[in-house]
Amino acid sequence: MKSVTKYLTFHVEKRFKLVNITPEIEKIVQGSKISEGLCLVNSMHITSSIFINDDERGLHADFERWLEKLSPHLPIKQYLHNDTGEDNADAHLKRQMMGREAVIAITNGKLDFGPWEQIFYGEFDGCRNKRVLVKIIGE
Amino acid sequence: MKSVTKYLTFHVEKRFKLVNITPEIEKIVQGSKISEGLCLVNSMHITSSIFINDDERGLHADFERWLEKLSPHLPIKQYLHNDTGEDNADAHLKRQMMGREAVIAITNGKLDFGPWEQIFYGEFDGCRNKRVLVKIIGE
Amino acid sequence: MKSVTKYLTFHVEKRFKLVNITPEIEKIVQGSKISEGLCLVNSMHITSSIFINDDERGLHADFERWLEKLSPHLPIKQYLHNDTGEDNADAHLKRQMMGREAVIAITNGKLDFGPWEQIFYGEFDGCRNKRVLVKIIGE
Repeated sequence: MKSVTKYLTFHVEKRFKLVNITPEIEKIVQGSKISEGLCLVNSMHITSSIFINDDERGLHADFERWLEKLSPHLPIKQYLHNDTGEDNADAHLKRQMMGREAVIAITNGKLDFGPWEQIFYGEFDGCRNKRVLVKIIGE
Repeated sequence: MKSVTKYLTFHVEKRFKLVNITPEIEKIVQGSKISEGLCLVNSMHITSSIFINDDERGLHADFERWLEKLSPHLPIKQYLHNDTGEDNADAHLKRQMMGREAVIAITNGKLDFGPWEQIFYGEFDGCRNKRVLVKIIGE
Repeated sequence: MKSVTKYLTFHVEKRFKLVNITPEIEKIVQGSKISEGLCLVNSMHITSSIFINDDERGLHADFERWLEKLSPHLPIKQYLHNDTGEDNADAHLKRQMMGREAVIAITNGKLDFGPWEQIFYGEFDGCRNKRVLVKIIGE
């Protein structure tokens, strides 16, 4: 069994943004020389997500409005967590809706994806450095 | 390390349906001859889900009503994504709530499940062919 | 490839509770002598979750209020599932929002975590014994 571990750092200049990171993950898979295995991609932070969906600008605006409706940022004081001095309780909730991680099959040395699957980093409390872990095991 | 990769195709004749696919996955696990490992099952499409829950008809109706309440299909025009000509923006949201994938332990050659765990394919934008990936790695 | 399988049992004396189980999982990882691999942690029941987020008491109260708002326990009779004699349909919904499982990288013999990542068992229908599965594969 072989394994490869990589860390990516993102610094998003807005509170909320969805970033397509598929090319970065593809590059790591190619460099791993692993042809059959599993690739874990997870946010190492708890106010951001890794998820797989469509790369369509309108849909991303829909995601933002939907997440804001179900787990609103304002008013700050509706959340006990924000009594600690934070203002990001909503980002912890949004991250639960969108998920922490994706586990992706590697087949014939490539991410084994359907036609529209793309990997996104979902930032819900931006303007700071955050890391994403990529771990591949296989042969 | 051994690995097995299979693709299942589903064609559901309704917009919304939850299908118990546990027997299909069990068959693949048995055929794999892998006794200890991990089994990834994921939708290859972005308007459907793989998830694990209970096979109870009333609960499935509850899921549908609940998903429809939190991410309604109508009105179509409330979603920017639907300006592209699609009418399935809500299915992208429902898929986030129910998840893309399940990772299941294989122990002694079987899915290592609790008493009520069953694997479902959740279709939220049906009436077309869609694929599910099963990838097993182990020994 | 090596693999380790362990089962943990929890008995939470309340309907709703979030329990930090990181120390238990760390102990299993250490005992496994696996230095590079993947660790799956999943609830074996369908009214509880495994998820990764922050260990902050205010946030946990926020999670409870948020889950109760989006998938309320009462009135019992709003759910068809509860016509079977159960009163836990809401717990099946809450579990979908919080997730069944976490897949965690093991690097240099340790859970490869960001600074605030902690593993939680989320109980949404307590007062009974429930099991959690830990499966580690790697080398």
